[in-house]
Amino acid sequence: MKGQITPPLDKERSRSAKPVRPTLYSLDSDFIRKVAKALDAGNIEDVKDFLSPLHKADIADLIECLPQSDRHRLIIAAGDLFTADVLANIEEDVRDDILDKFEDSEVAEAIAGLESDDAVSVLEDLEPPRQREVLQSIPLQERAVVEEILTFPENSAGRLMQREVLALPEYWTVGQTIDHMREDDSLPDDFYEVIVVNPRYEPVGSVRLDKLLRSHRPKLLNDLMKEDIKTIPVNTDQEEVGYVFEKYDLISAPVVNEEGRLLGSVTVDDVVDVIQEEAEEDILRLSGVSETDFYRAALETMWGRFTWLLVNLGTAILASVVIYQFDATIDQMVALAVLMPIVASMGGNAGTQTMTVAIRAIATRDLTMSNAGRVLGKEVLVSLANGGVFAVLAGGAAAVWYQDHLLGLVIGGAMIINMITAGLFGLVIPILLWRLRIDPATAAGVLLTTVTDVVGFLAFLGLGAMFLL
Amino acid sequence: MKGQITPPLDKERSRSAKPVRPTLYSLDSDFIRKVAKALDAGNIEDVKDFLSPLHKADIADLIECLPQSDRHRLIIAAGDLFTADVLANIEEDVRDDILDKFEDSEVAEAIAGLESDDAVSVLEDLEPPRQREVLQSIPLQERAVVEEILTFPENSAGRLMQREVLALPEYWTVGQTIDHMREDDSLPDDFYEVIVVNPRYEPVGSVRLDKLLRSHRPKLLNDLMKEDIKTIPVNTDQEEVGYVFEKYDLISAPVVNEEGRLLGSVTVDDVVDVIQEEAEEDILRLSGVSETDFYRAALETMWGRFTWLLVNLGTAILASVVIYQFDATIDQMVALAVLMPIVASMGGNAGTQTMTVAIRAIATRDLTMSNAGRVLGKEVLVSLANGGVFAVLAGGAAAVWYQDHLLGLVIGGAMIINMITAGLFGLVIPILLWRLRIDPATAAGVLLTTVTDVVGFLAFLGLGAMFLL
Repeated sequence: MKGQITPPLDKERSRSAKPVRPTLYSLDSDFIRKVAKALDAGNIEDVKDFLSPLHKADIADLIECLPQSDRHRLIIAAGDLFTADVLANIEEDVRDDILDKFEDSEVAEAIAGLESDDAVSVLEDLEPPRQREVLQSIPLQERAVVEEILTFPENSAGRLMQREVLALPEYWTVGQTIDHMREDDSLPDDFYEVIVVNPRYEPVGSVRLDKLLRSHRPKLLNDLMKEDIKTIPVNTDQEEVGYVFEKYDLISAPVVNEEGRLLGSVTVDDVVDVIQEEAEEDILRLSGVSETDFYRAALETMWGRFTWLLVNLGTAILASVVIYQFDATIDQMVALAVLMPIVASMGGNAGTQTMTVAIRAIATRDLTMSNAGRVLGKEVLVSLANGGVFAVLAGGAAAVWYQDHLLGLVIGGAMIINMITAGLFGLVIPILLWRLRIDPATAAGVLLTTVTDVVGFLAFLGLGAMFLL
Repeated sequence: MKGQITPPLDKERSRSAKPVRPTLYSLDSDFIRKVAKALDAGNIEDVKDFLSPLHKADIADLIECLPQSDRHRLIIAAGDLFTADVLANIEEDVRDDILDKFEDSEVAEAIAGLESDDAVSVLEDLEPPRQREVLQSIPLQERAVVEEILTFPENSAGRLMQREVLALPEYWTVGQTIDHMREDDSLPDDFYEVIVVNPRYEPVGSVRLDKLLRSHRPKLLNDLMKEDIKTIPVNTDQEEVGYVFEKYDLISAPVVNEEGRLLGSVTVDDVVDVIQEEAEEDILRLSGVSETDFYRAALETMWGRFTWLLVNLGTAILASVVIYQFDATIDQMVALAVLMPIVASMGGNAGTQTMTVAIRAIATRDLTMSNAGRVLGKEVLVSLANGGVFAVLAGGAAAVWYQDHLLGLVIGGAMIINMITAGLFGLVIPILLWRLRIDPATAAGVLLTTVTDVVGFLAFLGLGAMFLL
């Protein structure tokens, strides 16, 4: 740990000390309302004045915030301010909508102005026929780059990488490298390290720019480079890329083909988006939404959520069939119908807790086959303990409510059975899905609540039929 | 978009082209088992051989994977390989456990060897009395830095930043800057840009290292620097820091105090962890787990989950009280008890879908007060549509099952009522909690299912009592 570092300042030579206020975002509701007003009034110049100081990401946000009808008008008013970079920053659903309004040649021109990774992210969302047409309008050399990237699987490192890298042989000196960088103006826009390659064009190390800056000109890259680098095979899933970046604190990493030769480089700014996306996907899937539908039209949103609700209707009917087996029992003792949702609901909640921790632990690779047994032991203990406590609480409440201690014992017994079932299945279902290579977040929830509903109703009504009638 | 850039390679001068195989991770179940075996056999040298090629993050992972009893033995065996950086990489719950076994002075020595942000992240997890004792063993100068950081709120930019920054006046040249960097070996380990400050020590711009490398020596920083920078007030919540980094694709950002003066810098590697953490927190909270308890002992895990289950018991009893009001109705028609969970369950699921999309849209600032009305309109439409479809499906199934078309109409009507309720409350509850400055992910779920359970049972049993008896 070191203190703060700065050389002494010479006030005479500095610019006058204007106070600098931190501003994190440029958009607020007021601002958006003002822009919408100017749009409605047709004051193109005002709209341009509002937009010109904005960051491209803020212009993209502004477009997303506006109602669909205003978006296209804003883009027309923005003119040159609506750049390809703004387009790349817009959320997929909104972007599709906007691109529909443009000619193929306009889209092609915008895409040609982007770095290869951004170009691909815009292109891959287009419908295949449109994608082909747009591709044909892109200049040959750039089209070849994009088309090759599109051969890599979706959500793979190949789609994430930029082809623009600075790859140098290890016998170059710091001086040569710096001179090369000064002279060559076709270098990538954003890069943080030089990739060192051998004659087979395989990455053998990397030199971070700060190391380069701090070293003297005659020094060889070979003596500066870090050899313990993480190279990413081009077909690696983006979730795994995010995991590697997070674990090893990477800023960029070389991407290689099957022969281990350098193809491009993934940088952390793209990985930040991936990490956000993948975590978001897990949250949404756990709740039965396949992907965020926030910017989607009502009808599409409805269909997106329909499947999950249909599956849920099936499992709810299954639970009803279980209850139906006991209708004679309920007919004799209505209290059972009144209390039965308690056991099912507690099991569902306890199971969801275990399941969520397990799904995240699988995603972060904390849960593996080598410690699954130990974790299972712990979950059984936790379920037993919480099951016992809630058996007493729910049983006590039921016994007092209905003045029937036998009813209390029945609900308590059912509670323990269902809580242990919940703990077991909450862990085993995600592990099984994961071993079967199914995303646990998608299917685990519905399987689990089916189990806890069925076991909950069966245990409570079954014990009731046995001991209370 | 550009093609790939590399100067031609001279095979004669390159190292022999040894094939390089990409290896993403070093740990697998086999490896872990081998290490555990060597530990059991007491082969310290074997253990060391296993550990020495590992990345610090892998050693940390290995320690986490082992059963509690083996962890300390591994650390003893590791000796010098167990560095402060390894310690900083270990998950909080496991680290607490490990630190308990060390003397205060040993912990202090480890902490003094870390960068200020990592030092704070280890220290802030210690119990306050232990924290004070450890702090007293840290050398004075470093203690002052850490103690100041600890005055900033938890989970704020102040806790996230490193104090080590390179801040230079704008009248310096590229040459001066490079010479300064070559000479001063007390510079931060990882940095990606030079922060340009005015005489009031306020950040006025930043120069990325690649720009510095590509410019000629006489050039002034003033002419190179980007002036449109995002400076982060020291009290900013880390979730907001993550949002700003993601939105503006930042690599690092200066942190300033209330007067706007430079205090330190946040780098993207720390922000990647924050983004992961915050998304994880939302997932876990939605499922009623306050924070991940994967590495926690059974008893602590049980208590961590207990509160949520207790709240859920309360709402389940509330639903039972609603059913209880209709026990005479159920007594006359047991079919109502058999079918009633369907309506409640469908409402709960539909509401959770809406709620999850809303909670994520709030977190990503897509949902704001300026578009809330529009989103509400859409949700009502979606709920009406899905409510209608599932009213027909569930109503049809019930009518066929019980050969009673009136029963079908009742369940259909209740379904529509509950699905619309679910859509409305699924959106309104998170927005209200957010306006009240309560994290929507924590409380929205339980409020929502209470509403959908109560309304579901009330609508179905109420309509049943009105039309079927």
